[in-house]
Amino acid sequence: GWPSRHQRTTGIHESQTQPLFKEKYFTQSLDHFNFNAMGNGTFLQRYLITDKYWNTGYGPIFFYTGNEGDIWEFALNSGFLTELAAHQEALVIFAEHRYYGKSLPFGNESFNIPQIGLLTVEQAIADYAVMISALKRQLSAADCPVIVFGGSYGGMLSVYMRIKYPNVVAGALAASAPILSTAGLGDPRQFFRDVTADFETISPECKYAIKGAFHHLKELGERQDYSKIQSAFALCKRPSSVQDIHQLNGFLRNAFTLMAMLDYPYSTHFMGNMPANPVKVACETMLRGSDLLTSLRDTAAIVYNSTGLLTCFDVSSLYVECADPTGCGLGFDSMAWDYQACTEINLCYESNNITDMFPAMTFTEEERLRYCSKRWGVIPRPGWLKIQFWGDALSSASNIIFSNGNLDPWANGGVQKSLSSSLIAINIGGGAHHLDLRGSNVADPASVIEARKTEADLITQWVELERTRIQRLP
Amino acid sequence: GWPSRHQRTTGIHESQTQPLFKEKYFTQSLDHFNFNAMGNGTFLQRYLITDKYWNTGYGPIFFYTGNEGDIWEFALNSGFLTELAAHQEALVIFAEHRYYGKSLPFGNESFNIPQIGLLTVEQAIADYAVMISALKRQLSAADCPVIVFGGSYGGMLSVYMRIKYPNVVAGALAASAPILSTAGLGDPRQFFRDVTADFETISPECKYAIKGAFHHLKELGERQDYSKIQSAFALCKRPSSVQDIHQLNGFLRNAFTLMAMLDYPYSTHFMGNMPANPVKVACETMLRGSDLLTSLRDTAAIVYNSTGLLTCFDVSSLYVECADPTGCGLGFDSMAWDYQACTEINLCYESNNITDMFPAMTFTEEERLRYCSKRWGVIPRPGWLKIQFWGDALSSASNIIFSNGNLDPWANGGVQKSLSSSLIAINIGGGAHHLDLRGSNVADPASVIEARKTEADLITQWVELERTRIQRLP
Repeated sequence: GWPSRHQRTTGIHESQTQPLFKEKYFTQSLDHFNFNAMGNGTFLQRYLITDKYWNTGYGPIFFYTGNEGDIWEFALNSGFLTELAAHQEALVIFAEHRYYGKSLPFGNESFNIPQIGLLTVEQAIADYAVMISALKRQLSAADCPVIVFGGSYGGMLSVYMRIKYPNVVAGALAASAPILSTAGLGDPRQFFRDVTADFETISPECKYAIKGAFHHLKELGERQDYSKIQSAFALCKRPSSVQDIHQLNGFLRNAFTLMAMLDYPYSTHFMGNMPANPVKVACETMLRGSDLLTSLRDTAAIVYNSTGLLTCFDVSSLYVECADPTGCGLGFDSMAWDYQACTEINLCYESNNITDMFPAMTFTEEERLRYCSKRWGVIPRPGWLKIQFWGDALSSASNIIFSNGNLDPWANGGVQKSLSSSLIAINIGGGAHHLDLRGSNVADPASVIEARKTEADLITQWVELERTRIQRLP
Repeated sequence: GWPSRHQRTTGIHESQTQPLFKEKYFTQSLDHFNFNAMGNGTFLQRYLITDKYWNTGYGPIFFYTGNEGDIWEFALNSGFLTELAAHQEALVIFAEHRYYGKSLPFGNESFNIPQIGLLTVEQAIADYAVMISALKRQLSAADCPVIVFGGSYGGMLSVYMRIKYPNVVAGALAASAPILSTAGLGDPRQFFRDVTADFETISPECKYAIKGAFHHLKELGERQDYSKIQSAFALCKRPSSVQDIHQLNGFLRNAFTLMAMLDYPYSTHFMGNMPANPVKVACETMLRGSDLLTSLRDTAAIVYNSTGLLTCFDVSSLYVECADPTGCGLGFDSMAWDYQACTEINLCYESNNITDMFPAMTFTEEERLRYCSKRWGVIPRPGWLKIQFWGDALSSASNIIFSNGNLDPWANGGVQKSLSSSLIAINIGGGAHHLDLRGSNVADPASVIEARKTEADLITQWVELERTRIQRLP
């Protein structure tokens, strides 16, 4: 369930005919942590920048720590940054994460072994620290406080920037950042339980209908009635094995994951096209007809056939199983994310058909290890992220907002209680995955309007505090 | 001017017939920041441990973050840790830095290219974080607060551990840690100016005698009177070039560096043998005879011929020029340190014969780059350490003691003013290089006794604070 499944081909801001951002490239070190090997090499890292609102050389810098996808995707879906920049006279930069979008260190060979080895969280945040330091010099912005922003994995990166580089960034807004669960501090059942809860909240009948449909599919599979399954789900290819049914289940479960994450109150074009309130639409679809399998197919179509152009589903091209059971997406970006889920980032979520409405689909550490060593030649380190990025031992940090929406299945993997007067949790009732980072919309619930106001106030405070600190330096 | 020039061959604590420490090995990841390449490999990292004073499972853990040398060398010269452990019922661990002593990741091939590439500060502190986490589990010490200790570069590592891994370590005593100068925040003239000041403090005549002797040597060199130089300095080989005179100057300057750093009030066996108050002894030697060159030779002999067994000086085997103008020492350890001075750690100090008493010997960034790219195939990154380890922007950190002695030429490269109520600078009048880490001695000045008491009190506070924090965790 992580972004960038569908790369946008346009670089134009939806609401404007002229792009707000300039697209630039920064010459970045290939390897911050090894001076031999690739140590002297560089690559071109993409970033987007706008000084439209900037009080030049004085206003703060709002820096989005790009996550697992094309950086335009995040820039076009994080309107809060530019709205806030307009108020606070800030420079805005969206930096693309290495190995995603156009920031491929080795071009099309980036995903070969061992070239892929330079894809780590540590390299990514070092990129941002180096880039910020260099751009500040380049733009004569030495005294401009820097605030980092990020959503989801990008929010994790914002937290990591603040805890590892407080000399570079004065504060972080981490929206929907599952820093606890990804560090291994969670319950493997949590994610799909919370996806289920979203549908149950619409109505218990909705949940039972979905569960019933999956159960019906299971029975057909056990009976090997593949013909019936193909027709019911409009599959391009007839399934012929237990593995094909497993793939179909993953494909279907993923549709619900996406609708829960992206359950915004208006239609969006982030990670594909989504109608307004997709969970509600899904439940209406599930409960509309009399045939559960048809209803399940039509519900999956909300995600996979929003254009209505597909005449059948090729499930192996629309959904690819990987080391992230919430979905890796498709294309190069999905390979990079699969690698990250195979190395540092723990995403061993499973559905069990008891605490959730989905078929039982395990993903244990053993399965992860087997898959990852075969796919990438790596051994995951489940304990590493907690050591390197502190896990829940965050009390010595400061100036971080952890925002979460209660509709978001990622929320329970994040920080939901304030840890100190400067480690602030904001919970957004009726909010899906990092809703607060999106631009204002007439359909916004009051909760997110309030959250953005609190965030803006805290950021103002951090910027002022940082100005004081900078002025005191020798 | 960094430790481990002369490796000890004994593992026995000087004052004991039974060794206090057990020597053990930890299976460590070769590469914390790359899961491919060497990512799955491990090596054996040495550590010393004693539970003699430990309140098992409850008392704190005192962890020495080993620096550039054999770990026994530090364990045998850091008696403060065990004395404090006896009072505070602590477990004591001295961990050896990768690529030093017996902790060679690739055995005798560790110093080849590219194997040497896994020698970085980041890998070293990640080693310690991983080792501490694992040993706490192994020893059922999950709730035992960890305090890190280190001297010189080891003190830098202690600071870095606290700022980068406050989830793992509750506080740091960084003795004589030049964290500012090594991050490029210093004056290249500072170090040899401060060495000079030590000798001038004994008497201005002493400084002038040394300066005069070097001047005399310079004149002989310009006259190419190599025969006279050889006999005056008792050189095994007759010099025959400007380069040979340069080497001789480096050899001589290094003797003064070591005596200034190790100007302890009693004789020591750390980085070689040193008499009590070596700077005073040197000045007596310089001013004793009538021939300045003979006096200079006899002064160098305090360092290079403490046993009196050498009949001549082979300057190219006793001193090797490297990327650290304060000296890299000899043997494998010196190669590793040279590499670190070529990559992350900035040590571009120079003497100029104006602000110091030494011959003018430059070491510019350009010279560093030329040497390092030729020697190790690396390009130094002078700006990196300041970004990665915060430089002087430390105000968001906590629980660090920066101790320095005013006799120590490294002191002015460190933090000498408290930055907050928990970032405490302690200045030790009459103290040389990390004197406070040494065990008690009847010759100790009152200043260091007081400093150790303050350090002990602060550490007690940190341990208690950390217990409270741990108890509050879910």
